Amino acid sequence: MYKMKPCGGLAMPDPEMPVRVLVLNASLKHAPDISNTGELSELVLEHMHAMHPNVVSEVVRLADVRLPVGLGFRESADDQWPEIVPRLKAADIVLFATPIWWGGRSSLMQRVIERMDSLDEEYIASGRSALYNKVAGVVITGSEDGALSTLGTIMMVLTFLGFTMPPECAAYWIGEVGQPTSKDREKRLVNEATKHMAMNLARNTLYYALLLKERPLMPAMVPAHG
Amino acid sequence: MYKMKPCGGLAMPDPEMPVRVLVLNASLKHAPDISNTGELSELVLEHMHAMHPNVVSEVVRLADVRLPVGLGFRESADDQWPEIVPRLKAADIVLFATPIWWGGRSSLMQRVIERMDSLDEEYIASGRSALYNKVAGVVITGSEDGALSTLGTIMMVLTFLGFTMPPECAAYWIGEVGQPTSKDREKRLVNEATKHMAMNLARNTLYYALLLKERPLMPAMVPAHG
Amino acid sequence: MYKMKPCGGLAMPDPEMPVRVLVLNASLKHAPDISNTGELSELVLEHMHAMHPNVVSEVVRLADVRLPVGLGFRESADDQWPEIVPRLKAADIVLFATPIWWGGRSSLMQRVIERMDSLDEEYIASGRSALYNKVAGVVITGSEDGALSTLGTIMMVLTFLGFTMPPECAAYWIGEVGQPTSKDREKRLVNEATKHMAMNLARNTLYYALLLKERPLMPAMVPAHG
Amino acid sequence: MYKMKPCGGLAMPDPEMPVRVLVLNASLKHAPDISNTGELSELVLEHMHAMHPNVVSEVVRLADVRLPVGLGFRESADDQWPEIVPRLKAADIVLFATPIWWGGRSSLMQRVIERMDSLDEEYIASGRSALYNKVAGVVITGSEDGALSTLGTIMMVLTFLGFTMPPECAAYWIGEVGQPTSKDREKRLVNEATKHMAMNLARNTLYYALLLKERPLMPAMVPAHG
Repeated sequence: MYKMKPCGGLAMPDPEMPVRVLVLNASLKHAPDISNTGELSELVLEHMHAMHPNVVSEVVRLADVRLPVGLGFRESADDQWPEIVPRLKAADIVLFATPIWWGGRSSLMQRVIERMDSLDEEYIASGRSALYNKVAGVVITGSEDGALSTLGTIMMVLTFLGFTMPPECAAYWIGEVGQPTSKDREKRLVNEATKHMAMNLARNTLYYALLLKERPLMPAMVPAHG
Repeated sequence: MYKMKPCGGLAMPDPEMPVRVLVLNASLKHAPDISNTGELSELVLEHMHAMHPNVVSEVVRLADVRLPVGLGFRESADDQWPEIVPRLKAADIVLFATPIWWGGRSSLMQRVIERMDSLDEEYIASGRSALYNKVAGVVITGSEDGALSTLGTIMMVLTFLGFTMPPECAAYWIGEVGQPTSKDREKRLVNEATKHMAMNLARNTLYYALLLKERPLMPAMVPAHG
Repeated sequence: MYKMKPCGGLAMPDPEMPVRVLVLNASLKHAPDISNTGELSELVLEHMHAMHPNVVSEVVRLADVRLPVGLGFRESADDQWPEIVPRLKAADIVLFATPIWWGGRSSLMQRVIERMDSLDEEYIASGRSALYNKVAGVVITGSEDGALSTLGTIMMVLTFLGFTMPPECAAYWIGEVGQPTSKDREKRLVNEATKHMAMNLARNTLYYALLLKERPLMPAMVPAHG
Repeated sequence: MYKMKPCGGLAMPDPEMPVRVLVLNASLKHAPDISNTGELSELVLEHMHAMHPNVVSEVVRLADVRLPVGLGFRESADDQWPEIVPRLKAADIVLFATPIWWGGRSSLMQRVIERMDSLDEEYIASGRSALYNKVAGVVITGSEDGALSTLGTIMMVLTFLGFTMPPECAAYWIGEVGQPTSKDREKRLVNEATKHMAMNLARNTLYYALLLKERPLMPAMVPAHG
């Protein structure tokens, strides 16, 4: 179980260095409905802006984007995945934000993971991952249960795609089983553990993103030894 | 997410038929400490006794049993697994009861699953599963998060070992993230959803156990067709 | 790990009784492309037809059905979920068939699970699950890894929705890590373990479906005791 | 699914800097039996030694260590957990190496995770994680299925405990379903994907460990803002 941790500030490696943050919000609700997942992501972004003067952030609400089923780079004439890929490539930090439905990531988050397959193919073909030296964070909300499991299943994908995951790379809220969902938001907004997670997530993803911009891992395109 | 369901009574197939229930309690706490998992299992047993006059139940507290690591039937001279196997074979219903530690079944429940490997080997050798026509239920408690994931990972094992799983075959309690664990028991004891799950779990496992005692699935030891 | 089990025939409870089987194929490929998941489901159906003279089966290929995101019964004017619900309700056996993408059920299977939420709401409102006394089976294919985990996460949802799961309620194929996916089909077609699983899945779901049609679990709409 | 990636060499941040690596091998087999998990871990260590002249490594075979059940720092007079903790604290890289049993980490790996709870308590009490600035890698072997799921459930714990996870932080081998386990080792030894994963795991954990030794994340013990 997650136990609440202290939150300490941090001297960031380089306060001048710009950092681009992309949030992929996989809520099943369409804009402008309030999404728990969206609000918690916004809290993380607020901390980032407060901690570093040069953060540029963007949120993509996946429920309002056309992402047809398939594994190609472009699956139909009106497929919007090709518009998301350059944003992914430009980002230094990507927050994967999803609600929980029956213990798992939403169908929209799963769709994004399926569509990222084209980036994995590109990595194989080019020998270099477009996602290396990017830092991932995860934001999860659910009425009850499933955050840690959902987190693990996302982290496992992200490591093989090339993302770096700092300590405490997630923020989530889940409630007690069997409670009225109408109170979820209210409880989440005052949950101290969730607030601490949001702050540590912001701090640690920022620190690692700045560090990797300065000192990127750049494998040579030759065999490692022999 | 689990949503609370109504609880209705049931006319049991045969009120005279005896039913044996075995609870494997994988709490990390030793007796006589109160175990949340143990108490919730007791609630399920109480419902069973109230619903059917001829229930015989037994609880094994795994923290107080010597179960050395390994995959054999007997792993050491003082290995107590060989004492558990006949109880498993005699049971009509087995309740797998586990706390959650970091989103998964406890090391004691995992040890039981590893040790059941010898029953799986016996199934392959003899062509008949000793666990067919037995009904499984799952009881889970945790301070927060992980019940559904833990449930799924247990069900997946149990189906291949030969157990039958009725509808609503689980009862669990988990709380909101970040709360003091000292209040877990108090909250669990008044949680209506957990109470309903316990009642439906008792009712449905009993019904299926009685039905299967009357009408067991008995595969012939010949090829199915051709 | 799954170890291959013997396959024995079975005297079915009532050879005259009709049984309706619905396959929900969540392959990401569109018809008429060959889907590994689809082919393995067809093998299960073939066994069912061979084992019981009165099986009526239907396959829904989800990649070719419009299932918009959301939790309502009808999410848009052209939403096809309302056409699937009556088939679900009419079925005695439902096979949930999915490929694995990065260790999890496909986005189409996740979408179906999200959309079944409206049936769960109906259960709460009416006090009776439309899915009680239905038997579920699971069919999974993937190039490598993830079958057991995907299976568990589906079983966990299905038990709370009201489905019954017989022993060995799944059939799957997964290959060794790092092999060319072009050989998957060829390997699957000769895999003895997968063939045995398909036969046992067909046999056991049929047996339980026939048994439950004869002896359904019908909770009274009154409190269980007191 | 994992797809094989190119392996490139890397100029390490500081070839003089010593790096301590601890392997926790959770194989169910006792020494001196050959453990698949152990052998794959050794391969990772070999790459580390080849890539960096100043690696000091140690392997703990958990099946031969006394780790009683419980959550305290010392659970019995002969408890050996207190001997493992200082090695964990001294390590720069920790490889969590586990076989898969029925889709999950072994009971020995689960036991280690439970026992690490005392470090989490220490983090809360002291305000500083003893595991920050340490890098984690995961090594998994199984006859078939479960590597990605097991990986995710370990990563999820490790991030909250304070570990850093670099890209491609895992190496695993799993085979096709239903094959004789006697051939597992032979297949693993020639599997190119597994070899590539082992090399990338060695390279990336080393790079991040060296980077973090030079530029550790050191949160101040004051509120982050305001």
